[in-house]
Amino acid sequence: MDLMDLSRQKIHTLYVSKAAAKAQMEFDYDGPSMKTAVPGPRSQELTKQLGDIQNVGAVNFFCNYEESRGNYLVDVDGNRMLDIYTQISSIPIGYNHPALLKLMTNPNNLSTFVNRPALGILPPENFPDKIAESLLSVAPSGMTRVQTMACGSCSNENAYKAMFIWYRNKERGYKTPSDEDHSTCMINQAPGCPDLSILSFMGAFHGRTMGCLATTHSKVIHKLDVPSFDWPIAPFPKLQYPLEEFTRENALEEARCLEEVEDLIVKWRQKGKPVAGIVIEPIQAEGGDNHASPDFFRRLRDIARKHGCAFHVDEVQTGGGGTGKFWAHEHWGMDDPADIVSFSKKLLTGGYYHKDELQADKPYRIFNTWMGDPSKNLFLSEVLNVIRRENLLEEVTRSGKALLNGLYELQAQYPGILSRARGQGTFCAIDICDGATRDTILVKARDKGVLLGGCGDRSIRFRPALVFKEYHVHLLLNIFNDVLANHK
Amino acid sequence: MDLMDLSRQKIHTLYVSKAAAKAQMEFDYDGPSMKTAVPGPRSQELTKQLGDIQNVGAVNFFCNYEESRGNYLVDVDGNRMLDIYTQISSIPIGYNHPALLKLMTNPNNLSTFVNRPALGILPPENFPDKIAESLLSVAPSGMTRVQTMACGSCSNENAYKAMFIWYRNKERGYKTPSDEDHSTCMINQAPGCPDLSILSFMGAFHGRTMGCLATTHSKVIHKLDVPSFDWPIAPFPKLQYPLEEFTRENALEEARCLEEVEDLIVKWRQKGKPVAGIVIEPIQAEGGDNHASPDFFRRLRDIARKHGCAFHVDEVQTGGGGTGKFWAHEHWGMDDPADIVSFSKKLLTGGYYHKDELQADKPYRIFNTWMGDPSKNLFLSEVLNVIRRENLLEEVTRSGKALLNGLYELQAQYPGILSRARGQGTFCAIDICDGATRDTILVKARDKGVLLGGCGDRSIRFRPALVFKEYHVHLLLNIFNDVLANHK
Repeated sequence: MDLMDLSRQKIHTLYVSKAAAKAQMEFDYDGPSMKTAVPGPRSQELTKQLGDIQNVGAVNFFCNYEESRGNYLVDVDGNRMLDIYTQISSIPIGYNHPALLKLMTNPNNLSTFVNRPALGILPPENFPDKIAESLLSVAPSGMTRVQTMACGSCSNENAYKAMFIWYRNKERGYKTPSDEDHSTCMINQAPGCPDLSILSFMGAFHGRTMGCLATTHSKVIHKLDVPSFDWPIAPFPKLQYPLEEFTRENALEEARCLEEVEDLIVKWRQKGKPVAGIVIEPIQAEGGDNHASPDFFRRLRDIARKHGCAFHVDEVQTGGGGTGKFWAHEHWGMDDPADIVSFSKKLLTGGYYHKDELQADKPYRIFNTWMGDPSKNLFLSEVLNVIRRENLLEEVTRSGKALLNGLYELQAQYPGILSRARGQGTFCAIDICDGATRDTILVKARDKGVLLGGCGDRSIRFRPALVFKEYHVHLLLNIFNDVLANHK
Repeated sequence: MDLMDLSRQKIHTLYVSKAAAKAQMEFDYDGPSMKTAVPGPRSQELTKQLGDIQNVGAVNFFCNYEESRGNYLVDVDGNRMLDIYTQISSIPIGYNHPALLKLMTNPNNLSTFVNRPALGILPPENFPDKIAESLLSVAPSGMTRVQTMACGSCSNENAYKAMFIWYRNKERGYKTPSDEDHSTCMINQAPGCPDLSILSFMGAFHGRTMGCLATTHSKVIHKLDVPSFDWPIAPFPKLQYPLEEFTRENALEEARCLEEVEDLIVKWRQKGKPVAGIVIEPIQAEGGDNHASPDFFRRLRDIARKHGCAFHVDEVQTGGGGTGKFWAHEHWGMDDPADIVSFSKKLLTGGYYHKDELQADKPYRIFNTWMGDPSKNLFLSEVLNVIRRENLLEEVTRSGKALLNGLYELQAQYPGILSRARGQGTFCAIDICDGATRDTILVKARDKGVLLGGCGDRSIRFRPALVFKEYHVHLLLNIFNDVLANHK
């Protein structure tokens, strides 16, 4: 914060660091390079072509992934952009990382790509070892069991099912289900298909399949016209930033939300739709990068325990190192942070960790044909090797500090445009005065070679890969500063 | 049927065809080879190891996919089995097909595996071409649009959402959604989250995420303890086989079911939960390989049209050639068979085709991070090339005839054990006198080197790869015959 009075000129000189960039040349490029407006003519042509097959309203541009490297995404018109969005936060160690390319050339790995197994019934010989060296090596505190799935939504759907099964077994006193349970479940009726609920938070995003979608409350476009469940929705704390300056106000807001959580649990139990589980993101991402304090999460975890609800931490977007720790919930400093932790995106495979007692009591209850994809586990193993070898979590912490400090400075410089800079590691965000201005700024930044994403109504989210170094931060801040300076 | 009185001895000599087997040697093996009981010691050891991480109750044995070839799956104890289950019907052209291995060694393809894009926003340059040469080249009649997804459940979930969106837009007269639509959808309430339903059939299997699961009614284990929707469930015709011998009885049964469908549509409309779509499998697979006549499906399609419901044909298990046509619904001989056709498994990527009017009106309504996986499209392109080059649909038709005739013969020989032989292409099944006997026979067949799967209460389903030739059929029938002869 002591740098806040730096002039724009000073920021410019301060952030240039060409020498450091050179060292990474074989893997990374040394800066953006823009040849056309984006989308350029080739992208437009391809968008038209794809438009005959699909809705292309969300397509930004077409990519040349072969030419993309490290933090730089190259498009089909030869534009090279510093990528701070990384395929909706799903590229862990940059494009075409040499370690991943090498993995592909190992003939021992071919069969894993060519023969996708039904993992639940016929796993490959190396499956336990690969799981141990990949997912188990980064298992959250207190968890030794993990189930892989194909994507984030499937991970959460199956985590919810695990919580429902666990809850009903408790309710039944672990007795065999009754004939009525059996017959009613086949026709979607209680008690076989019980009126249980999952408590979620306003602003949450947990996916788009129908179970997940009933716990997603971030944007109308996700939910409109899709039938849903009558499940309780608690307010997520609306905090003031920087958090350390508003501890008292924020604590009050968090207490208000927690009180509401307990009220809802009681109310839904009375309604005959008991809360089997609580699901929450450590940082609400799609909903606008909303943070809460470790104290909030600790208390929420206690409330879940007190009321006999499972506690599910959805780390689909926050997991994988972007916050400076491998799991965002590690910032809470708890030995027993959750009953279920789900993941996807940067982990390259979906899935969820769970405590022993959350394991379904019988096979085929949590099941599908593929149950994940071993070829993704191969990549994940190698990604984790790179993270360890290159100390990427430390890099993220260092880059994240530089990024957040830079955002604080810019916010001080452009108080009419920017506010509420916030973040953990490089998992940062800042608010723009309004949604339309935010969208304009995103386009202008892209025209200058920086690819950013929006979230919430008017936020910009920063989601670089873990190989995003301090000099990339400075490059980003320089360009972002230019965009803001020229804005009007 | 004229072969029914063949003695067991005659079947044996008839089915041996070593010369044909030789021609395939480099890709395939020439027969099963069993070294240990299954699961063998190494499989048991690995199962124990994996048991510390996951529920392993469904694990059959561990596989050596590197050594598996063509129609033969090799396990970690060196047992080689003729695979008629093919990873729950998801291996299209056998293990380690040379064409797929070759694809992996092409350096131009590396990037597709290493850089998984967010397809909905940043597709790769070759995406439209790859979709055109793969999925569009086998598009069902009347459909030019396709959306890829990661798995079968996600495909059906999103297909349902597309039907809900389409239906509500019709209901609103294609007007902009109201403020009330917007505000209520965020809290899971009508009219924003409307009380719409999907009509499904008893015995159906459409997946296990919560939307899909509300339309799945095949086994208790899939559904028990998971909350669901009050959606209408129609009876699926219980036909007598062979179909051509019971046309009159079957037509009556089908008429009964269709009448019930119309009644349910009317009833659920009156309940305020209109049926937005009807979903059905061309052959109910998981539910027991239940067939219906082309006439039944044509009439059902008419009912859907008459009542303004979308008609969704779920080809997740039937699609990809196993019935002798690429899509099972092609056997119905209709120009306009469906509004939506979903797929996964043998297609290697999930997804659904749809008519133009079933495309969501806005981007981001049908959306998720990955929206499929281009590396799977690469494999699919090559699989389709192999299917065309090697005339595999003709092979399937030929092998399927041999298989079904063989099953008729065995059924005539073992009337106390076998009944209701049925099938289309190699997508065949036969009933066993009871579930316990079925399970015993599956194990005995495996001990003799033939891997089969069950479905329904007491059926065996045959799901070979498309490279399953007539001499494989004879090998299978010989071994199956041995198992039955020794049974008691």
